[in-house]
Amino acid sequence: MSYFTDLPAIRFEGPESRNPLAYRYYEPDRLVLGQPMAEILRPCVAYWHSFCWPGSDVFGSGTFERPWLGGPDTLAMAETKADAAFDFFAKLGAPYFAFHDVDAVPLGRSIREGWSNLDAIADRFAGHMERTGVKLLWGTANLFSHPRYAAGAATNPDPHIFAHAAAQVRAVLDVTKRLGGTNYVLWGGREGYETLLNTDLKRELDQLGRFLALVVEHKHRIGFTGTLLIEPKPCEPTKHQYDFDAATVHGFLSRYDLVGEVKLNIEANHATLAGHSFEHEIAYALAHDLLGSLDINRGDPQNGWDTDQFPNDLNEMTLVLYRILQAGGLKTGGFNFDAKVRRQSIDAIDLLHAHVGGFDLLARALLNAERLIVDGGLADFVSRRYAGWDGGFGQDILAGRLSLAEIAEKAAAGPEPHPVSGRQEMLENLVQRFI
Amino acid sequence: MSYFTDLPAIRFEGPESRNPLAYRYYEPDRLVLGQPMAEILRPCVAYWHSFCWPGSDVFGSGTFERPWLGGPDTLAMAETKADAAFDFFAKLGAPYFAFHDVDAVPLGRSIREGWSNLDAIADRFAGHMERTGVKLLWGTANLFSHPRYAAGAATNPDPHIFAHAAAQVRAVLDVTKRLGGTNYVLWGGREGYETLLNTDLKRELDQLGRFLALVVEHKHRIGFTGTLLIEPKPCEPTKHQYDFDAATVHGFLSRYDLVGEVKLNIEANHATLAGHSFEHEIAYALAHDLLGSLDINRGDPQNGWDTDQFPNDLNEMTLVLYRILQAGGLKTGGFNFDAKVRRQSIDAIDLLHAHVGGFDLLARALLNAERLIVDGGLADFVSRRYAGWDGGFGQDILAGRLSLAEIAEKAAAGPEPHPVSGRQEMLENLVQRFI
Amino acid sequence: MSYFTDLPAIRFEGPESRNPLAYRYYEPDRLVLGQPMAEILRPCVAYWHSFCWPGSDVFGSGTFERPWLGGPDTLAMAETKADAAFDFFAKLGAPYFAFHDVDAVPLGRSIREGWSNLDAIADRFAGHMERTGVKLLWGTANLFSHPRYAAGAATNPDPHIFAHAAAQVRAVLDVTKRLGGTNYVLWGGREGYETLLNTDLKRELDQLGRFLALVVEHKHRIGFTGTLLIEPKPCEPTKHQYDFDAATVHGFLSRYDLVGEVKLNIEANHATLAGHSFEHEIAYALAHDLLGSLDINRGDPQNGWDTDQFPNDLNEMTLVLYRILQAGGLKTGGFNFDAKVRRQSIDAIDLLHAHVGGFDLLARALLNAERLIVDGGLADFVSRRYAGWDGGFGQDILAGRLSLAEIAEKAAAGPEPHPVSGRQEMLENLVQRFI
Amino acid sequence: MSYFTDLPAIRFEGPESRNPLAYRYYEPDRLVLGQPMAEILRPCVAYWHSFCWPGSDVFGSGTFERPWLGGPDTLAMAETKADAAFDFFAKLGAPYFAFHDVDAVPLGRSIREGWSNLDAIADRFAGHMERTGVKLLWGTANLFSHPRYAAGAATNPDPHIFAHAAAQVRAVLDVTKRLGGTNYVLWGGREGYETLLNTDLKRELDQLGRFLALVVEHKHRIGFTGTLLIEPKPCEPTKHQYDFDAATVHGFLSRYDLVGEVKLNIEANHATLAGHSFEHEIAYALAHDLLGSLDINRGDPQNGWDTDQFPNDLNEMTLVLYRILQAGGLKTGGFNFDAKVRRQSIDAIDLLHAHVGGFDLLARALLNAERLIVDGGLADFVSRRYAGWDGGFGQDILAGRLSLAEIAEKAAAGPEPHPVSGRQEMLENLVQRFI
Repeated sequence: MSYFTDLPAIRFEGPESRNPLAYRYYEPDRLVLGQPMAEILRPCVAYWHSFCWPGSDVFGSGTFERPWLGGPDTLAMAETKADAAFDFFAKLGAPYFAFHDVDAVPLGRSIREGWSNLDAIADRFAGHMERTGVKLLWGTANLFSHPRYAAGAATNPDPHIFAHAAAQVRAVLDVTKRLGGTNYVLWGGREGYETLLNTDLKRELDQLGRFLALVVEHKHRIGFTGTLLIEPKPCEPTKHQYDFDAATVHGFLSRYDLVGEVKLNIEANHATLAGHSFEHEIAYALAHDLLGSLDINRGDPQNGWDTDQFPNDLNEMTLVLYRILQAGGLKTGGFNFDAKVRRQSIDAIDLLHAHVGGFDLLARALLNAERLIVDGGLADFVSRRYAGWDGGFGQDILAGRLSLAEIAEKAAAGPEPHPVSGRQEMLENLVQRFI
Repeated sequence: MSYFTDLPAIRFEGPESRNPLAYRYYEPDRLVLGQPMAEILRPCVAYWHSFCWPGSDVFGSGTFERPWLGGPDTLAMAETKADAAFDFFAKLGAPYFAFHDVDAVPLGRSIREGWSNLDAIADRFAGHMERTGVKLLWGTANLFSHPRYAAGAATNPDPHIFAHAAAQVRAVLDVTKRLGGTNYVLWGGREGYETLLNTDLKRELDQLGRFLALVVEHKHRIGFTGTLLIEPKPCEPTKHQYDFDAATVHGFLSRYDLVGEVKLNIEANHATLAGHSFEHEIAYALAHDLLGSLDINRGDPQNGWDTDQFPNDLNEMTLVLYRILQAGGLKTGGFNFDAKVRRQSIDAIDLLHAHVGGFDLLARALLNAERLIVDGGLADFVSRRYAGWDGGFGQDILAGRLSLAEIAEKAAAGPEPHPVSGRQEMLENLVQRFI
Repeated sequence: MSYFTDLPAIRFEGPESRNPLAYRYYEPDRLVLGQPMAEILRPCVAYWHSFCWPGSDVFGSGTFERPWLGGPDTLAMAETKADAAFDFFAKLGAPYFAFHDVDAVPLGRSIREGWSNLDAIADRFAGHMERTGVKLLWGTANLFSHPRYAAGAATNPDPHIFAHAAAQVRAVLDVTKRLGGTNYVLWGGREGYETLLNTDLKRELDQLGRFLALVVEHKHRIGFTGTLLIEPKPCEPTKHQYDFDAATVHGFLSRYDLVGEVKLNIEANHATLAGHSFEHEIAYALAHDLLGSLDINRGDPQNGWDTDQFPNDLNEMTLVLYRILQAGGLKTGGFNFDAKVRRQSIDAIDLLHAHVGGFDLLARALLNAERLIVDGGLADFVSRRYAGWDGGFGQDILAGRLSLAEIAEKAAAGPEPHPVSGRQEMLENLVQRFI
Repeated sequence: MSYFTDLPAIRFEGPESRNPLAYRYYEPDRLVLGQPMAEILRPCVAYWHSFCWPGSDVFGSGTFERPWLGGPDTLAMAETKADAAFDFFAKLGAPYFAFHDVDAVPLGRSIREGWSNLDAIADRFAGHMERTGVKLLWGTANLFSHPRYAAGAATNPDPHIFAHAAAQVRAVLDVTKRLGGTNYVLWGGREGYETLLNTDLKRELDQLGRFLALVVEHKHRIGFTGTLLIEPKPCEPTKHQYDFDAATVHGFLSRYDLVGEVKLNIEANHATLAGHSFEHEIAYALAHDLLGSLDINRGDPQNGWDTDQFPNDLNEMTLVLYRILQAGGLKTGGFNFDAKVRRQSIDAIDLLHAHVGGFDLLARALLNAERLIVDGGLADFVSRRYAGWDGGFGQDILAGRLSLAEIAEKAAAGPEPHPVSGRQEMLENLVQRFI
């Protein structure tokens, strides 16, 4: 008997179904461009939001009455929570989950106690995974909630705190490998600053680079074959975070010689907090072979913090999936619902509504994206637009066969270029046809 | 007789002066940490805002009645404008100016006519510079106003437009060298996109990288010894610009192997549009030896576009100058007032008020910064805060002498680190003492 | 022969059509809840964006080569433009248009010349309207582009500028009546301030109140039976505009005793600039019987200025139309496309693509909204949620039959209220079913 | 012995002092325009941030080790906290404090137990107030933290929750009166919505109006002579809050006939979250005789949530105080430091640094403002700018002696108005002289 026992298991009933607890689009085995939907999407439930967050916010305490919340933070409670979580995954038919160490177990009064608790819960997870077929998309260490990390983990002014962070990551990376996780994520929630007045930017970035290199070395040492991922976010909790956005992390990886070793976990709400569209961050990552995995959620366009709402923008998700399909799909990553039900959504069934809506949005967007790919009109337009660069003059420039002065003289000798419409509205209408 | 003839020349009268047209702090020869104020700051007047912009905005036409505006765009008008501008520089005692090609002259009906006009105005500039002692901080080519650049210059889908841009840059770089300019700036106002639907990000970034490499090669070919600078901006006019912020440009320079060849021109208002403080962008650039020069202005904290107002935040400017002094000052760069008087400030004297206020703000901030440096308290605090990293354990980590597992074991063997206050409020108060 | 002669007329072809220049949803005579679609929506083309804006922005000049742009600003040119505009309306099958005085004609060197030109173009408009059946949704006076209005029109420190504004509004209101306009709009583009330092807020608001009262009086005097509308916007061009948002204008109308006389023209992009969702502004207006008409467009979620893009968010528009249908529809207002094609969309056909997409979005959203209304689930949920207030205790409170102390004592005597889920995710999913 | 025993008492030492724990400007008895500084400013310490917040944020747990935090939430603990708080007030020389009911005591398992606890702590407060001379600026009820208020207090769909809120407010208002509080504040932290999908805007606003009217009635019934204040905020914790900004609340008060009964408590950080400058909100309130009191803090210009930092912008505070002095000062209100030390500022002394800096900023700004008043230049400029409205034509318009048509004819008969500079830069420089 788990907290979720009374909830129904969710089945596919097709687009015409009026059953709010059925899938209208998510049909795991349906082939999309020759591959099963569930394998393309790898939808994933986030342990923290759905099973650990009590419904609190900065101005108010928890509203959810989960049996495992509010009491003493023990391993037994952690097991009750795990049992309920896997029951939920099974009801939903979710193929993947993801967790932080502190979500899974109390880390205890000492590092060794934390390791031991983590081992214990990993056993229980492994049993549930075996039983249900649910897989681990990624593990991660929470290096931001404990007071010791108030001034950062890897970027802390105190090397002993760096070491503490190393102890956590080592343990979770080991457990992730053991559970067959396909990725390992690092989110630097406190790797940033509150004020420049007390901050040595250069030192902190070098510390962060070293930390990341250590993790890469350890990954290889233990033979973990999953992908290491950094999750960019510009701020919150800190005033400024070093992994600001995809381009910033990309530059960081270049400078610390880690391109190829580390990829990106792009989150929708983090993208918009950084002043980018979600689609932009994905397009940037794909253009540089950096896209690892996705955190799917949405922010509130009028609010300036991470609201982590369940996604519901079919336009945006269709274009996101179009780009990913065009690029051949994700390799080891998936679509993790890093999203939480609203604080007023206090019932177990609200968790189900939220995920059913999310899975269906993904699936519907995927079907739209497939049609956009098959239609081909969008991709053709873009190819044709740049065709001039495939020709002799364009290639001469790009290959470095002409100097600035030579190019200038050619321009002076030629006519004024002919203006061409960008056809933005036509393309926007074209996309609408597939929504 | 110029438009500015009736304006008074501005003199230093000291902090107690109530004359609104006198400097209260800007005293060019005053030594600050052993160097004349004017040499540290190199204040610079922007040709475009102060002499070319007619007071128009998106919702309204020009309000300024300058004799050289509104009529036919001829070389003769350009000369009238140049004469007035240098008269203004002289009244102000401005040591530097900066210009775009299209600010200086009409570019005519052909590339060759543009080159010829540019040569002609350069002669006139040279004469004025000789006469007044005003120097050129930087030149730049406007690659964003002409309709041909609507879809970008270097990043245009049409290589002939790339070539046109090359023709402009070549000419202005040559002229900048000839006029003894100490820097050359590239701002990619249309190097970005309006919609991802019609954009090939990878191609466009490669084109941009090639363009920049061509400019670097040309610089060396002609023996220009000034600094090449990129000016980051996240958006506006485009929806998204590739030179988003300092970190993004840094990554770009790394990937196209141009670090060391190209530095940054950081603008206050561009920083805030990108979601950063001005101080952050400067700190980032200084931490990576990327700071070339500065565009000094301010945005409106409530408005989401480039308002380019004259700066008046003494707090911010003091900290900016503190960081720059700490780093040993700018090398070839200066403080360019990339700022415009408000559309209602229609009189010649408003231009004077604006610059007098701006020069004084800079000077006062510099004097504050000097005292902060001399006091030393801020720098000492930061050094002490990271002292742990100078010790054995910290150095072992940074030097790569310990693996992740070894560090983890050390952490597990040690006690919980001791929490330490970040003292943000104390440091903020300390700074206030010098404001 | 007009500029648009070669464009095809747009026809309804149904959702399966792949013709980009056909309507897939917009079917003017289709009944929606018993009323023809075109009567519910009253789609309207904005004269300014589509026929007067040359494709310029703050950083670049016009890119559009319309025959009537770029030459001398004469009445003959205005007539060429009008002929083309009505040809465009006819091709599109647009039932309505809207215009500013300065869009329609040059206002000339004197107020009287402006009046005369306006009369002349009104004759031509009348002929075209008669011929094509296109109707006038609203007229308005441009009180923000001319330099004289730099410091405001009604809120100008100079009463003679107030008077000039009065002269414009009087003329356009008269012409609007004569052309059978169903509304008259006031947008206070410069009714605000650039800096509080030179501003007397109280005086300016009183001037604005007086101005509005004068317009109301004049409306009644001439027997204009259309609706007067204020269009809120928080800023841009000014730093702060007095008609910030719906609630602010509502308060203003209350204080100057104009509620009932003046309603709101809500614009999507203005709503988001003010920190509201479009849906919020509409819900607010409907809750207070203030909704007059709509300006349909979209802003860029990452850019902080009025981008005035054509709308393409089906989710949002569905909910907007759901609310409006629920409230019984607009009375005299319509859906005005206050939207412009992008600066790169330089061809005549781009204007057509844009409007076809816009009309179709509206129509599709309307059909979705109809189904939401018929389903009834959303409305029922809300009614049930507040049912407690329909009962005795709720009514006693609302009717003022209980004092604070009495209510407090009742609460103290009763049990802790039972928590209830807000079911946000379930409701979001419900809406998705109708998208 | 209290937690703060070892902290020094803060004394005025003058601007030259280098003692970080001395006042450099705050000199309570110094006369400013004839009134003691402390009486003009009435600086106030916020009980919640400084004594109740544990240093937690959304991503991390508390970092502060205060003896009264973290244990069981008992009345005894509340007393320990109160003793420490008053010790702190005394060290600081703070003339005022402010509190929420839940800050002061646990509200217990029932309404009556809450009332009883509140009475008990009021006794203790009264003793400390008597002993130290510290006064109560305002009391308030926390109607947002308890889960029961997740969907609002007065605006809750359940009238029993409205009643619960009434029970809290009644009690705190009574206690505020008893303790001689000079104001009572209402902040509607959950009076708003998370989604419009489940919200009836009209009902909720009517409930809010009724609630406010009940509080007004109760205030008069018990003879409380302090001022009732609403504190505007646009969002956070909710997606949208009804008391969005000063203008919105003003409109609300007008419609529910409460102007004159209720004034505003303006907070700096709430102003900026609403898209306004702090100065704007104050100017608006002063222009309509709505300014009651101030919450002094600052937001982070790059972060979109309520950071509640201690203020340190001397420019802004100078202009705020200038406006308030010009208007004759606050009546019953004061300057409440609704600000919290950063999460890393874990020591008792950090609280002291923060408040010392804040008091000094206020005092220095006040002295600047006094000089701006005495100088008179700013006020004179504004008067002269609008002088045209004092003359015959302006007065004829404002008094309604001319119709729109008559004004239009006068404009047509007259010349084009003469353009006048707004002199923004000159005025900004003028202000800088007094900073």
